[in-house]
Amino acid sequence: IDDSPSVYSVGFPPRMNLASQFAHKVKEMFFADDPLRPYKGQTRSMKFLLGLQYLFPILDWGRSYDLAKLKGDVVSGLTIASLCIPQDIAYAKLANLEPQYALYTSFVAPLVYAVMGSSRDIAIGPVAVVSLLLGTQLQNEIDPVKNPEEYLRLAFTATFFAGVIQAALGFFRLGFLIEFLSHAAIVGFMAGAAVTISLQQLKGFLGIKNFTTKTDIVSVMKSVWRPVHHGWNWQTILIATAFLTFLLVAKYIGKKRKNLFWVSALAPLVSVILATFFVYITRADRHGVQIVRHIKQGINPSSAGEIYFSGSYATKGLKIGIVAGLIALTEAIAIGRTFAAMKDYRLDGNKEMLALGTMNVAGSLTSCYIATGSFSRSAVNYMAGCHTAVSNIVMSVTVMLTLLVITPLFKYTPNAVLAAIIISAVIGLIDYQTAYLIWKVDKLDFLACMGAFFGVVFISVEIGLLIAVMISFAKILLQVTRPRTALLGNLPGTEIYRNVEQYPETIKVPGVLIVRVDSAIYFTNSNYARERILRWLKDEVEQIKAKNLPMIEFLIVELSPVIDIDTSGIHAFEDLHTALQKHGVQLLLANPGAAVIQKLRSSGFIEIIGRDKIFLTVGDAVKACAPKAREGV
Amino acid sequence: IDDSPSVYSVGFPPRMNLASQFAHKVKEMFFADDPLRPYKGQTRSMKFLLGLQYLFPILDWGRSYDLAKLKGDVVSGLTIASLCIPQDIAYAKLANLEPQYALYTSFVAPLVYAVMGSSRDIAIGPVAVVSLLLGTQLQNEIDPVKNPEEYLRLAFTATFFAGVIQAALGFFRLGFLIEFLSHAAIVGFMAGAAVTISLQQLKGFLGIKNFTTKTDIVSVMKSVWRPVHHGWNWQTILIATAFLTFLLVAKYIGKKRKNLFWVSALAPLVSVILATFFVYITRADRHGVQIVRHIKQGINPSSAGEIYFSGSYATKGLKIGIVAGLIALTEAIAIGRTFAAMKDYRLDGNKEMLALGTMNVAGSLTSCYIATGSFSRSAVNYMAGCHTAVSNIVMSVTVMLTLLVITPLFKYTPNAVLAAIIISAVIGLIDYQTAYLIWKVDKLDFLACMGAFFGVVFISVEIGLLIAVMISFAKILLQVTRPRTALLGNLPGTEIYRNVEQYPETIKVPGVLIVRVDSAIYFTNSNYARERILRWLKDEVEQIKAKNLPMIEFLIVELSPVIDIDTSGIHAFEDLHTALQKHGVQLLLANPGAAVIQKLRSSGFIEIIGRDKIFLTVGDAVKACAPKAREGV
Repeated sequence: IDDSPSVYSVGFPPRMNLASQFAHKVKEMFFADDPLRPYKGQTRSMKFLLGLQYLFPILDWGRSYDLAKLKGDVVSGLTIASLCIPQDIAYAKLANLEPQYALYTSFVAPLVYAVMGSSRDIAIGPVAVVSLLLGTQLQNEIDPVKNPEEYLRLAFTATFFAGVIQAALGFFRLGFLIEFLSHAAIVGFMAGAAVTISLQQLKGFLGIKNFTTKTDIVSVMKSVWRPVHHGWNWQTILIATAFLTFLLVAKYIGKKRKNLFWVSALAPLVSVILATFFVYITRADRHGVQIVRHIKQGINPSSAGEIYFSGSYATKGLKIGIVAGLIALTEAIAIGRTFAAMKDYRLDGNKEMLALGTMNVAGSLTSCYIATGSFSRSAVNYMAGCHTAVSNIVMSVTVMLTLLVITPLFKYTPNAVLAAIIISAVIGLIDYQTAYLIWKVDKLDFLACMGAFFGVVFISVEIGLLIAVMISFAKILLQVTRPRTALLGNLPGTEIYRNVEQYPETIKVPGVLIVRVDSAIYFTNSNYARERILRWLKDEVEQIKAKNLPMIEFLIVELSPVIDIDTSGIHAFEDLHTALQKHGVQLLLANPGAAVIQKLRSSGFIEIIGRDKIFLTVGDAVKACAPKAREGV
Repeated sequence: IDDSPSVYSVGFPPRMNLASQFAHKVKEMFFADDPLRPYKGQTRSMKFLLGLQYLFPILDWGRSYDLAKLKGDVVSGLTIASLCIPQDIAYAKLANLEPQYALYTSFVAPLVYAVMGSSRDIAIGPVAVVSLLLGTQLQNEIDPVKNPEEYLRLAFTATFFAGVIQAALGFFRLGFLIEFLSHAAIVGFMAGAAVTISLQQLKGFLGIKNFTTKTDIVSVMKSVWRPVHHGWNWQTILIATAFLTFLLVAKYIGKKRKNLFWVSALAPLVSVILATFFVYITRADRHGVQIVRHIKQGINPSSAGEIYFSGSYATKGLKIGIVAGLIALTEAIAIGRTFAAMKDYRLDGNKEMLALGTMNVAGSLTSCYIATGSFSRSAVNYMAGCHTAVSNIVMSVTVMLTLLVITPLFKYTPNAVLAAIIISAVIGLIDYQTAYLIWKVDKLDFLACMGAFFGVVFISVEIGLLIAVMISFAKILLQVTRPRTALLGNLPGTEIYRNVEQYPETIKVPGVLIVRVDSAIYFTNSNYARERILRWLKDEVEQIKAKNLPMIEFLIVELSPVIDIDTSGIHAFEDLHTALQKHGVQLLLANPGAAVIQKLRSSGFIEIIGRDKIFLTVGDAVKACAPKAREGV
């Protein structure tokens, strides 16, 4: 081993002035994806064109659109239309709205998205979880049976504000805020929502007339068991069970053999047709089988005049819009990212939010409620071979034709088959495999996941969400409150120093204690970090006394993982330095990063311990503890 | 340079089962100071004795108490008594209480603390900031002029719950929660409170009769200027100005020459005596100079029956108690730690909380309001040569004698001199030097500091506090949302790789890109981290193309600062791996820590990239990129 410390000393990053520091922070915070790069060095008209293409990606991909792509898009568009029409009619019930509003949503929203969105695979429309969330929140404010008109107006208001919030997040480049909902929390939340939605379907499944408006499992089960002897309708149960079995089998087939995916994609439409025909023939509706009865014909009426822009309902709409809008956003972005990764194209989160937000604002003016990307339909879209957002246009046109022509045919569709469709659709949201993976990798993540799940199932959708967010935050705070610390030892024959627990082959350097703190040292952990380092020292000294080894004379703190430090952290180091001095131990620092060395300098701490006590590596620091300490190396 | 990678490979920490993992986390979270260490291997009776000593430290230090110590304690006790009596009478006004309640507090609380507390230097009693905080909060609920009795009862209720909360935090070892109030926030909060308190004193200083009950600077200045022509009392202003000058000069002398600290310590009492005598002689109270008028003689009556244990006032008392109790706690712990560090003894935060909580519960039953450690009196106590908490007992007895004998003499004490005493006391809380240091070291800390300051001054004490806490949290979240990343280069002639910005002498390795992520990779930053790494690659590839250098074939991620990873983080690495593969770039990882390698293993990611792609050091990883990449080294 070379005796001399390496020729390099700790580098000081160039001092930045306040303005450029600030500009750098702002850039990394809001413009991390460097969105202005393509505009560099372009002419003004080119810049305008690029800006227009940014707003309307259709101008970009539209130019290279051809017949081959159109073929794929038409097939996939028709496939998702066949899936979305029965799902829409079913999902509208979750939002306590009449079926046509979901169909309206599947007409306008995909058109807007096709022009402005940048995902090529997402299928836009109403989804189960957002419909449920919107429905339960609206119903807390207005009774949908007693005041259907006000209820509807509040639904449009919430949709409007959801769109505004979504677009604003994108416009102000605050898209990173949705990252605060962790993957684990979303898995738990989705599974919980799936269970809640399925339980709600017991109403249609069993033909129960008086059902609770609450969504927690206890209330629902009470509603289900109370009428068990005279409130269940066996004809309904028969229809529901038969079609649920059919749908699940179709789903299983589609999953097992990828080239048969169309079986599961077409199953819902086939179910609706068969069930409607069956009820029409047998007039089962006269025997207590509840049917859809009426869907208003014709395309979307304007709803611009219906939105509450002031008064208490505007505030309530805003509140509901924020919650439902953020969940819708999270779902859409997650779907978009998944498929973008599979086909290897980039998805600009902020741009997507702008598109989704504009889409919902447009929807709120044309009798739609909140639309977003649907997991199941996007997967079918992808498998059916969609190439661009044109598949959404095809679907939209199909839905429009349905609204104009076919809706009266849905009159005899039994609610039971809709319940079966919903159950078979949301069951895929229960992702127990991912939950198991989360359990294996990170127990705290799993806790967030379960917190969200049980919160949704046992209390309510909003509370479940809140629990998940709180556990996720607590995890971050835990990390910065009680960072890991480790003792380091030398890997024999090298100058590498590593955690003695992770590398049992390491050897401690006699007379020197090397400690690593695994976190930024902030006000939340500065006292802990100081006390913990002193405890390592105390433990070591006790062992040394027992074994009669040379006393500790140097304490090296390895700062590689200490990404940042604040005034409290520097204060803790000052205290540590003082405490060590009283015990005759010299404090040395190894490998401070750019931010840390800068703050140690500006606070004057470097002068306190001496510039020669700060080293490039632990190895250098150990060498500086020569000659006494090195005897044993 | 040696060609072969070092003989060591990345270590896997021993697998821990769930129970021991959990036990380890709990220990570091709640028992980081290893409080049970002294009990190890002791007999049962010894354990009991140690437990008793833990609860009542007086049993420990009392045994080695001697006459020399008593002398120091009597001198310092009398000194702080002379300081606390006038301050108490003044501070009671901040809490909208009659003066005797502050004196009661200075009698009972220090006695309890002396028996249970472990700080040797802290001076216990009412303090300005907590008095103001309690006063403004209580007055939001009950008008102290119209309903003085209920107001008093709510004050005792708040004190009771403050004590319960403080003791509970200590008992359940949740003391770390107060660390969430950062040093910077406290500096700003204290300065803001000092300004607010001083502004409130303008009432007494100028002799204004109708004064606002609000504390924000705008309302107060309106109250001050409105009666400028006929509401100010020149005699009052004369007295106030004269004594404020005297106090400030005395303070200046005490600060300049440490051995004259008694000048500043005795100045308030001297001022009160002189001012009282002066008013008594001149009967200035007949010319509009407001006087104390009456302080009830006798020691504390019981107030156990006054506390609201149920009803809405109990809830309000609890709420006020939590806020005021936590601030009181923060102040006491900060003082305790400061002096403990100066005299080099350990202060157990949780134990202190238990002592302070018990003290306030006892106080609430004996007509006291919230007591805590006073910055100014503790400093005087320290300088006067206190040795143990006996100085608090001496002070307490002196206050008791005052209550029994001297209180009638305060009848003619002018409010103006009390205002002067408060102003001269709180002015020391404005620590502009520390604020400047914070500005130099950390701009975001400074923002928290200023947020607290302006929040307190312009809105209210609670809002200021809230702003400070929120900015502090935002800072932590910012760090985990947008972690720093850096490109690494080789220090020529070594195997050390460092940030190219911090170390301009580093050389990039041709064909290899080395990136370091400076944070745990969590759900909040996993997408950012992946995108940022890809952006580094993109930037580098552009430069390389321009310069016609060898293409990047390997991307090494240095994981030393990546303290932890969660499922989202692993997901991001999987995506990164896929994206790199599509560009023909191989992903390598260097130096994953214990937690990271464990999670990479349990998630199966190691198998995805290959176990041979994970290296002990960046140097080893670079060597593995041989032969092509190494040509340029």
